[in-house]
Amino acid sequence: MPSIRVVLVEPKNEGNVGAVARAMRNFDVRDLVLVDPCPLGDEARKRAMHGIDVLERARTVERLDDAIRESDLVVGTSGIKTESERKFARIAISPRDLAQRIGPMGGTVALLFGREDDGLHDGELSKCDLLVTIPASKTYPILNVSHAATLVLYELFAAKATKKGPRTASGLEKERLHDALTALLEATKYPAHKDARTRIMFRRLIGRAAPSKWEFHALMGVLQRATKRIQRLETKR
Amino acid sequence: MPSIRVVLVEPKNEGNVGAVARAMRNFDVRDLVLVDPCPLGDEARKRAMHGIDVLERARTVERLDDAIRESDLVVGTSGIKTESERKFARIAISPRDLAQRIGPMGGTVALLFGREDDGLHDGELSKCDLLVTIPASKTYPILNVSHAATLVLYELFAAKATKKGPRTASGLEKERLHDALTALLEATKYPAHKDARTRIMFRRLIGRAAPSKWEFHALMGVLQRATKRIQRLETKR
Repeated sequence: MPSIRVVLVEPKNEGNVGAVARAMRNFDVRDLVLVDPCPLGDEARKRAMHGIDVLERARTVERLDDAIRESDLVVGTSGIKTESERKFARIAISPRDLAQRIGPMGGTVALLFGREDDGLHDGELSKCDLLVTIPASKTYPILNVSHAATLVLYELFAAKATKKGPRTASGLEKERLHDALTALLEATKYPAHKDARTRIMFRRLIGRAAPSKWEFHALMGVLQRATKRIQRLETKR
Repeated sequence: MPSIRVVLVEPKNEGNVGAVARAMRNFDVRDLVLVDPCPLGDEARKRAMHGIDVLERARTVERLDDAIRESDLVVGTSGIKTESERKFARIAISPRDLAQRIGPMGGTVALLFGREDDGLHDGELSKCDLLVTIPASKTYPILNVSHAATLVLYELFAAKATKKGPRTASGLEKERLHDALTALLEATKYPAHKDARTRIMFRRLIGRAAPSKWEFHALMGVLQRATKRIQRLETKR
């Protein structure tokens, strides 16, 4: 099981931040990062209860990129589950699926929770390797942020006892994979209007598949070989 | 699946009552009964969000017996899980077990949540047909009452709705994907001794990722485009 980092993006209610710290403490997770949060005072401390140490040790950063640096998998949470496959950026798995998929992983997984009013923005979602949506009422699926965090942390805690699988590719290795795809798309002169969403499709696919180190190398081999072959043929022309 | 009634026994914090009402609304549960609660004001209403109708229709009773009357099963929740069979009153199952057990039932199930500070008392626990404990940290297993309610309601909801995800690529489509990879490996003159295991790696990766129809088409696009580009360049040579 990887180590878990909870990232709250621009939380607006200090009580919620305290409640998330308590939930983290309840499920043995300690690493809390706050991106440009509201001021934290008595209400946050009160709601944290015995999670006060988590709250006090939380790091505050200005930008999301600073919060997800050095993590191996970035998981976004979204209350909106789209039925449209075209809105690929919002296709999501359940918290239980997440727990099963990351159970065998090592490294650090960053769990992103968005603003109370409008969640994570598109630019933030595009940085996520995986998206999670909590199955809930069709007519009111938007949970309080501390409730959402509680559910995801609970599922990860419940799955912790599962067996270890092979070592998975690290965050850096996966970025090399995405760079290799980008290079191949360029070599094939991939249509510009499809480029961004093809790269996000690939990011999500790899995020869900959680490739092993060996699979990472094999897939790199295929992508790089195709790119080099095209480049060599073009220079010979 | 039976109909669910949530019973809060002597809640002391109105914000928690509002948060429970919201969680109920999130999981399509409407029947809330409050046993001798604290006064409810603005904070309860604020925290209820769209669960305000649940809060406003809540029944208030003086005694627990009035809250569990006409229910078919009484389920208590407890943060303390005893290992001792002597303290039989506190032997508990997990929320997931609960969901499985009551799934086939009809009638009404009353879910009891106790006071924020000292939970349900022994006399109250003795009225329960089943006890539920949420698996949590050994060093701090006491959840906020709205977090506990959220988890139990989530498990009941998840057991009810085997949710549909986006349509995944069919077996035939996935075979086309594997054919497309094979064609690309041939075009790049992939080393024969690596060929078979690279194709198996890809099959496993796709098997785990379970691509949607849309992802299938996008991935086919990348593979076929690379193969065609190599073939076209080679004939031009």
